[in-house]
Amino acid sequence: MSLMLKEIEQQPEVLARTLKEETAKILKFGKFLSSREIHLIVLVARGSSDNAALFGRYLLEITNGIPVSLAASSVHTLYHSRLRMNHTLVVGVSQSGEGTDINWVLRNSKKQGAYTIGITNEGRSSMSKLVDEVFLIRAGKERSVAATKTYTGQLLMFYLLAAALQGGRGVEKLQRIPELAAASLRLKTQVASMVERYRFMNHCIVVGRGLNYANAYELAIKLMETCYIVSERFSSADFLHGPVAMVQQDFPVILFAPPGKTFKDMRKLARQLKGLKAETVVISSEPSVLKWATRSVKVGPRIEDFISPIPYIIPGQLFAAMLAEVKGLSPDKPRLLKKVTQTL
Amino acid sequence: MSLMLKEIEQQPEVLARTLKEETAKILKFGKFLSSREIHLIVLVARGSSDNAALFGRYLLEITNGIPVSLAASSVHTLYHSRLRMNHTLVVGVSQSGEGTDINWVLRNSKKQGAYTIGITNEGRSSMSKLVDEVFLIRAGKERSVAATKTYTGQLLMFYLLAAALQGGRGVEKLQRIPELAAASLRLKTQVASMVERYRFMNHCIVVGRGLNYANAYELAIKLMETCYIVSERFSSADFLHGPVAMVQQDFPVILFAPPGKTFKDMRKLARQLKGLKAETVVISSEPSVLKWATRSVKVGPRIEDFISPIPYIIPGQLFAAMLAEVKGLSPDKPRLLKKVTQTL
Repeated sequence: MSLMLKEIEQQPEVLARTLKEETAKILKFGKFLSSREIHLIVLVARGSSDNAALFGRYLLEITNGIPVSLAASSVHTLYHSRLRMNHTLVVGVSQSGEGTDINWVLRNSKKQGAYTIGITNEGRSSMSKLVDEVFLIRAGKERSVAATKTYTGQLLMFYLLAAALQGGRGVEKLQRIPELAAASLRLKTQVASMVERYRFMNHCIVVGRGLNYANAYELAIKLMETCYIVSERFSSADFLHGPVAMVQQDFPVILFAPPGKTFKDMRKLARQLKGLKAETVVISSEPSVLKWATRSVKVGPRIEDFISPIPYIIPGQLFAAMLAEVKGLSPDKPRLLKKVTQTL
Repeated sequence: MSLMLKEIEQQPEVLARTLKEETAKILKFGKFLSSREIHLIVLVARGSSDNAALFGRYLLEITNGIPVSLAASSVHTLYHSRLRMNHTLVVGVSQSGEGTDINWVLRNSKKQGAYTIGITNEGRSSMSKLVDEVFLIRAGKERSVAATKTYTGQLLMFYLLAAALQGGRGVEKLQRIPELAAASLRLKTQVASMVERYRFMNHCIVVGRGLNYANAYELAIKLMETCYIVSERFSSADFLHGPVAMVQQDFPVILFAPPGKTFKDMRKLARQLKGLKAETVVISSEPSVLKWATRSVKVGPRIEDFISPIPYIIPGQLFAAMLAEVKGLSPDKPRLLKKVTQTL
């Protein structure tokens, strides 16, 4: 079994451990932060961590009403811009805590008056030493190059941060996450039975929206790095503003369609794709959208939009890991990649 | 000749007219805005206009030091979030001014205390009536579904806005833009001679960075909607954090490599791609990067990074428009698309 599959299966345990060990600390931090009048939250990351940040961007605006910006690292590292950052919280997200550019932006932001925190899996990393406060994903060492348990760990940390910024409101909902993640792992047989069909899939589009938009990015990056599939990622709205023109008979599209705020749009899109004779893989608990799918990943429990991102990415991770093997590739050792990528 | 090609060729004239007719107004507006203590700029758009906003995001942070956020429309339209927006400038960007979701975000932001402006080609649009101040791209009616002259017009408007926010500093540099755009149109023969080679290209990656990052998005969307090519877009840094694993012999990559802040990175990437025997099309004035290219688009004048985005996207637009014809497609009428897309 690949390391990637092993680490995918560790997720319920990692999530439970992180909840247990970090909740009290981050809630206390939320109280401290409320005295600082935060007007803006800036998130800075690369790769899968940047996908987690994209989730954080939606979650924090939705729950807290504080505007969020995803940092453009090169503004700091290449253009040496000095942004006005008082009343700003800057959150660095990095599995290793060693991304040179991420740490550069954190250092620069601190100089400009921001309060900085780090979300990382490595307590002794450069990032951990640099920031004002660290929150640790308790994932244990991640050995596969393809990040899985640290991605969902980062999502969980954003949930905790969002709850902390609201004085702890919503934290009880999060207790269900490890159990929902375990339920998602039981989709393994279902996913295993369908991957062979995609042996010769060379390109695809992944669509998600709102809180599941980040999952579209994350599944696409997994398919790119482990299966070498040219994978685009769009929200259903952006998809209709141009890229939909590419779709014709046989074109593969993967959709995240949990019940909730984004469901109507996703169902409409699934139906439209059926009309175009596209090949769709739909991940959902809802028969009313699955009926339009070429292949269904039927999520067992009916999970509301808000809490769906972690249980919904898991079948995506399983799909990428098992499809890589069907294609004769090792998902743990993508061509040209190392676990820590250094860029400026 | 397609409408798209005709409209591409109108760009020097459109840019000159917009400079002439909008500069004084926007500089005056800049003075007014400086009294309002703007702490955050939020940009909201879809499709090609969203690519222009991505340029604005980099430009405004680099020149003004005010943090910028690209709005997530669904936070407003689906999740009905109320963001705190005092001391915030919200800029809507839309060719038609009729994007339902864009106007929703503008209306919502206004209620939350933001000052709103619109950048549009249509003075009588819903957006124009809604915002506190409108700036018009003087492009004339855009008839091709594939936006070209309104995209560069929007970039120009962001330059003017950036100058206005600095009390007019830098506005003289912009006077060269129409002439540089005209020089880029003279690349038509060079581009025409190479498009046939890409008749059977079905996927590709477009890479740009910093101020040319938006151009990577824009060329990719043009290739998706006019040529039905599955086109990914990355910064050189993000590309190295995963997607590079897809690249092997023959894999097509298009690079924007103007001299300046991002040049070293782009040259390094071009060299690495040459080592992988990928197929590269490099757009640059610099022999030191063009020497690694499979096919070169040799930009005549040596244009510095800051002013390069408009003259550099033009050969990209020409490439998409002419390649569509080589593929037997009409770039003016992409499958399934209308000029104005309504999404929420």
